[in-house]
Amino acid sequence: VVNLSSCFLQGILERLDAGEIVIGDGGFVFALEKRGYVKAGPWTPEATVEHPEAVRQLHREFLRAGSNVLQTFTFYASEDKLENRGNYVAEKISCQKVNEAACDIAREVANEGDALVAGGVSQTPSYLSCKDKAEVKAAFRKQLDVFMKKNVDFLIAEYFEHVEEAVWAVEVLKESGKPVAATMCIGPQGDMHGVPPGQCAVQLVKAGASIVGVNCHFDPDTSLETVKLMKEGLQAARLKAHLMSQPLAFHTPDCGKQGFIDLPEFPFGLEPRIVTRWDIQKYARKAYDLGIRYIGGCCGFEPYHVRAIAEELAPERGFLPEASEKHGSWGDGLSMHTKPWVRARARKEYWENLKPASGRPYCPSMSKPDGWGVTKGARELMQQKEATSEQQLKELFQKQKF
Amino acid sequence: VVNLSSCFLQGILERLDAGEIVIGDGGFVFALEKRGYVKAGPWTPEATVEHPEAVRQLHREFLRAGSNVLQTFTFYASEDKLENRGNYVAEKISCQKVNEAACDIAREVANEGDALVAGGVSQTPSYLSCKDKAEVKAAFRKQLDVFMKKNVDFLIAEYFEHVEEAVWAVEVLKESGKPVAATMCIGPQGDMHGVPPGQCAVQLVKAGASIVGVNCHFDPDTSLETVKLMKEGLQAARLKAHLMSQPLAFHTPDCGKQGFIDLPEFPFGLEPRIVTRWDIQKYARKAYDLGIRYIGGCCGFEPYHVRAIAEELAPERGFLPEASEKHGSWGDGLSMHTKPWVRARARKEYWENLKPASGRPYCPSMSKPDGWGVTKGARELMQQKEATSEQQLKELFQKQKF
Amino acid sequence: VVNLSSCFLQGILERLDAGEIVIGDGGFVFALEKRGYVKAGPWTPEATVEHPEAVRQLHREFLRAGSNVLQTFTFYASEDKLENRGNYVAEKISCQKVNEAACDIAREVANEGDALVAGGVSQTPSYLSCKDKAEVKAAFRKQLDVFMKKNVDFLIAEYFEHVEEAVWAVEVLKESGKPVAATMCIGPQGDMHGVPPGQCAVQLVKAGASIVGVNCHFDPDTSLETVKLMKEGLQAARLKAHLMSQPLAFHTPDCGKQGFIDLPEFPFGLEPRIVTRWDIQKYARKAYDLGIRYIGGCCGFEPYHVRAIAEELAPERGFLPEASEKHGSWGDGLSMHTKPWVRARARKEYWENLKPASGRPYCPSMSKPDGWGVTKGARELMQQKEATSEQQLKELFQKQKF
Amino acid sequence: VVNLSSCFLQGILERLDAGEIVIGDGGFVFALEKRGYVKAGPWTPEATVEHPEAVRQLHREFLRAGSNVLQTFTFYASEDKLENRGNYVAEKISCQKVNEAACDIAREVANEGDALVAGGVSQTPSYLSCKDKAEVKAAFRKQLDVFMKKNVDFLIAEYFEHVEEAVWAVEVLKESGKPVAATMCIGPQGDMHGVPPGQCAVQLVKAGASIVGVNCHFDPDTSLETVKLMKEGLQAARLKAHLMSQPLAFHTPDCGKQGFIDLPEFPFGLEPRIVTRWDIQKYARKAYDLGIRYIGGCCGFEPYHVRAIAEELAPERGFLPEASEKHGSWGDGLSMHTKPWVRARARKEYWENLKPASGRPYCPSMSKPDGWGVTKGARELMQQKEATSEQQLKELFQKQKF
Repeated sequence: VVNLSSCFLQGILERLDAGEIVIGDGGFVFALEKRGYVKAGPWTPEATVEHPEAVRQLHREFLRAGSNVLQTFTFYASEDKLENRGNYVAEKISCQKVNEAACDIAREVANEGDALVAGGVSQTPSYLSCKDKAEVKAAFRKQLDVFMKKNVDFLIAEYFEHVEEAVWAVEVLKESGKPVAATMCIGPQGDMHGVPPGQCAVQLVKAGASIVGVNCHFDPDTSLETVKLMKEGLQAARLKAHLMSQPLAFHTPDCGKQGFIDLPEFPFGLEPRIVTRWDIQKYARKAYDLGIRYIGGCCGFEPYHVRAIAEELAPERGFLPEASEKHGSWGDGLSMHTKPWVRARARKEYWENLKPASGRPYCPSMSKPDGWGVTKGARELMQQKEATSEQQLKELFQKQKF
Repeated sequence: VVNLSSCFLQGILERLDAGEIVIGDGGFVFALEKRGYVKAGPWTPEATVEHPEAVRQLHREFLRAGSNVLQTFTFYASEDKLENRGNYVAEKISCQKVNEAACDIAREVANEGDALVAGGVSQTPSYLSCKDKAEVKAAFRKQLDVFMKKNVDFLIAEYFEHVEEAVWAVEVLKESGKPVAATMCIGPQGDMHGVPPGQCAVQLVKAGASIVGVNCHFDPDTSLETVKLMKEGLQAARLKAHLMSQPLAFHTPDCGKQGFIDLPEFPFGLEPRIVTRWDIQKYARKAYDLGIRYIGGCCGFEPYHVRAIAEELAPERGFLPEASEKHGSWGDGLSMHTKPWVRARARKEYWENLKPASGRPYCPSMSKPDGWGVTKGARELMQQKEATSEQQLKELFQKQKF
Repeated sequence: VVNLSSCFLQGILERLDAGEIVIGDGGFVFALEKRGYVKAGPWTPEATVEHPEAVRQLHREFLRAGSNVLQTFTFYASEDKLENRGNYVAEKISCQKVNEAACDIAREVANEGDALVAGGVSQTPSYLSCKDKAEVKAAFRKQLDVFMKKNVDFLIAEYFEHVEEAVWAVEVLKESGKPVAATMCIGPQGDMHGVPPGQCAVQLVKAGASIVGVNCHFDPDTSLETVKLMKEGLQAARLKAHLMSQPLAFHTPDCGKQGFIDLPEFPFGLEPRIVTRWDIQKYARKAYDLGIRYIGGCCGFEPYHVRAIAEELAPERGFLPEASEKHGSWGDGLSMHTKPWVRARARKEYWENLKPASGRPYCPSMSKPDGWGVTKGARELMQQKEATSEQQLKELFQKQKF
Repeated sequence: VVNLSSCFLQGILERLDAGEIVIGDGGFVFALEKRGYVKAGPWTPEATVEHPEAVRQLHREFLRAGSNVLQTFTFYASEDKLENRGNYVAEKISCQKVNEAACDIAREVANEGDALVAGGVSQTPSYLSCKDKAEVKAAFRKQLDVFMKKNVDFLIAEYFEHVEEAVWAVEVLKESGKPVAATMCIGPQGDMHGVPPGQCAVQLVKAGASIVGVNCHFDPDTSLETVKLMKEGLQAARLKAHLMSQPLAFHTPDCGKQGFIDLPEFPFGLEPRIVTRWDIQKYARKAYDLGIRYIGGCCGFEPYHVRAIAEELAPERGFLPEASEKHGSWGDGLSMHTKPWVRARARKEYWENLKPASGRPYCPSMSKPDGWGVTKGARELMQQKEATSEQQLKELFQKQKF
């Protein structure tokens, strides 16, 4: 195993322009929630200060698995978000400290290998509560200041449900002069205001993004459909940009417009939906065939999922990641097993065609998404299902507009 | 959150004799395989030497999640096993080094909290290839020497399919004078020679084990059935011992006598079978009600599964583990979500009654186990399914006796 | 139970114009195949001559169940079809005899109650083999001659995949001066040449159909979607017609453009897809709410499914069908059961909310449709699945155009 | 197709003693419920008087499908049962009339072909309400009087949950001098008082039954397990008898001791459990291999299921049933289909290996049986599920002993 990539580190655009495949990393909040360092609900990244060793270890695992980009663990780390979730964060941990620590840890691990550091911003409570453009942009700028001080390699605006806010983020990040990528957490139906994916892509590129695509909220198949629509939108508008996808590592064929948040299993019952490494190999191949060259993952993506991308695309790239020393391609590690029927699993056709059972015969294979965004029928179903909380739901509903 | 347990560290038997609940840790080989440090197939623990930081981090996560025992990562670390898998292990890494490093790392992390260190041995290739008692015992003794030198707190003989070998292991470990626990990876049908669970338990206690039970190979429900049979066997024989269970974190209602190894999904397609934290809370309660006081997990158990044991039994124990600072009980962390239908999930009844969907409508909910140990029908099914490899299977079969 | 409908028999249009609900009948070829009188594959109705008692009995069961229309069992009874399937039909049974017997039997049973007789024609092999308009029309005219001689009450052109042929059929049938209904076996994607449902409806009404809708090929939900598109098409064109739906009694959420024919289970493994009476009650309500007033069924619809339509709409109609004497509404017949948990099922909420299990844990819940009409991926899957027949498939494919 | 069986009709025992395969018929109450002539709940056979044409037609279909025995439609036709369900039966229809009409219809159809008529009795409300032996026997004797007057060919005591009552029935039927068959509706766990199947068989043979086995309540696989236990019981007791099986045509892998009655889907949501013709072919082969020579079906068995038995065993018997003129063996009727992928289904391997999808992704594949006969866990689950009726259930429970 020899890493054939260039011995001095090139920037993200040099790589993509040269036709290289860039492998992203996986999902931090879900992985660290399971490891005990992030609280589901707020999902904030104060672990960069509280438990840097845990964040560092996860970065390192992604690096070993083949990630060429380490994203700073700054998801939901805007000041308004951290304050909003203030009760979960020790008062002493300022927004700045969280962001700085995130940059330091990412850089430290990136230096152990062939990786770039990307500073990331995501959607803000300010936008959702209808603050004006200036105020929203100010929140991004505060994070950007840290990224500039720590000299990250490039910037990502990710996890935006509204293209308007994503455009504002890109505009701020562009002020830095660094390359900017932008991914929205939308499906083929488009953003929450109904802007279709193709149009979202066009707006983002016009705002200055050099790389566009999607992250989170939908499974690999659905996400690739969305990126395809983005690609078509850009082609129609005669715009050029690199494509990027960082989907969930959960199967979500049954979710509605707002993705996995509305599935009844979110976020504590998603286990049966976790994709296998073989699902990821199919995803990587399909993404590559679609012309996507920045291929990574989001929530649910563990290091072995990232490694599956690197292994699938090893023929194109010419090398395997470090962690493949501990992984036989297509189950090859089973070839010495004492039982012949287990040895018989050490081959590509076996795993490619396996339809894995859930071991849950009392559970269905699909769910109706909750929420008022979906059909009347589904809502009624939910209300029946939740009979005991109906009153509670109604009260909440009256107090608040959607 | 205040840890109310005694401020000076007591031994395993003092704790259990006093009626304390002892929480075990989770599965190392599966977790570290996903993180990129263990190779599926050989499943050997050379990571203790190659990547101590990764092993240390996993120990620490289990400790934070509530584990009272940190098992040395010495699974399959007998000399004969490591040699047998020699091609995967750099020649320089001796059996002794692997075992010593495992002890050092476990102790280092145990000292960060309220945990004991247990040295573990597991079944050997020597036994399977019909080496005599003396030779098999010598393999265990070599590991025991390290455990004594490193002064672990107690010893576990785990993952034995044959009670005969488990008894030999217990006999060797008892030479140390330290408390010995023994768990077999069997189901209600008993060991591979047909010895029923009750009788296995009796033999293990007579050999000197103070704690007996099961680990690995079967899901929580099936494992508790097996421990129940052990309990009944001990009662009938008027023997006393503490009970212990460390099951899989995979649903396996469909597996045969040899457990999850024979399921077609083993080991690279088990994702849809992963249990939720709520499944674990039910398991912990059921184990407690059955009289089991040493409650942990095996393959598939991640830190958040261990935390679920600690949270379920918090009323009995009087305290929560450190990692519960990042976890709202029964989904409580969702209570501030912006969508009312997500907030409506912040309650016990919701998660207790959820039947999580697989998101895989093209997959079944159960599989037929492979292998000649199962029924003729299942074997034929397998052979049809595997038509392309049938010849290969036959050839393998002829070369080798089962 | 008193039948409140008018004591003298009114025509189909008088009834519909007056706002009455007209209940169609169910599926003959599937029901009689299971009873041993129709051969799956050819699906021809020579039973009208060979076993009139069996056809008569099925008509009678639909009548008792609430059907207001008895369709002559003349499906696939055009001369070209019967000849095409000649090896299955004794030479002595002429097309004319089959059609005449069908009319006689339907009239005989219709006279036992409040029902109309409808003569039906369906798509022809002549059209599929590209015969010209005159030739195709001649085939319809031959059947129409029998319908006129036997004086049926109205005419139905049903089971057309191409609107062009359906229009030709309507034009022929209109020559009779009798009311004409027309249903296509298409889904929301439209006819096989890509004509969308709304446009199909417009063409059929312009050709003279007074009633338009869909039958066969898709499940109730999908069929109602299609009728909704037809309704919208007619509204946009400012055309008026009555709406009609006669869907499958099989769940087919997973089928492609050509419906259940392409599902791997067609036609001998559809059992797990059979809809319950409660599914039909939901369908009847939904159809009614959509403005459909001619509500019946097609393949898979048994007499108890038709009764479920009649029971659901009994409040609107003011009476129950005869067969409801042998049926407690919403499971009411269980109210005297000796076991309380079975008695507890005698209520609407129970059956409305039941998610019935398949009892087949080794089977999936959805299938990929076969066929070249679907995606490349699905085709490849099929080819893998069918490896043994691949060569055979290729040869067939070369011999024949699609 | 030539029927090679003897041209003069031999008795049931002559046939079985000669090693002939005897094919039973299918289920009347379920089939006629769907056709509109039997009410679910009471399940009584007054249709023999009210609608003889419907009963006659169903007999005829079974005859055509290959049944060698037509059972009189006298299920639940004991006087106590009919009175008990009196509100459903017009006062004028006496028990005697129902039974007489049943005999007449069966004989009329039997004379159309090569079939025997069997008079059947089943369990009585008298036994369940603890009436004494004399009273229970009197009920059977009243039906037997009719069977003797109408000179049926042999007698069947079927659908008994308690071997004690079944023995009483056999004793009464033996008074006639005619051959007696006895089937219990039990599973491998034995009768409701805990008598295991082997012992039940021994008691029935000692009471005079020449043929023993099971009917109803469980699916083919489970039923064959039970018959196997009966066979072993007879062998151990050195008793000889012919074996018989008439299982459900529903998959019930998930039911408890009392069979499908306790499944939540009983009786109005069983559709997804209906077995295919191919399942029946497997059943017929397995039954034959087990030494069973009287092979038929019970609830859910339609004529095409009976035909599947006859087709599977055609090689052994040397002939096909009449209805096979309308059925291509193993899907052969599809060989002329216009689509090659449908033609590709015209072969044995295809249908044998098909795992049919339910088309119900929101439904589970197994259910927890209701009832206090099952585990505490299942009961609690049921009570949660049925929250609205819990109070009602409790009240019912207090009023009544189980």
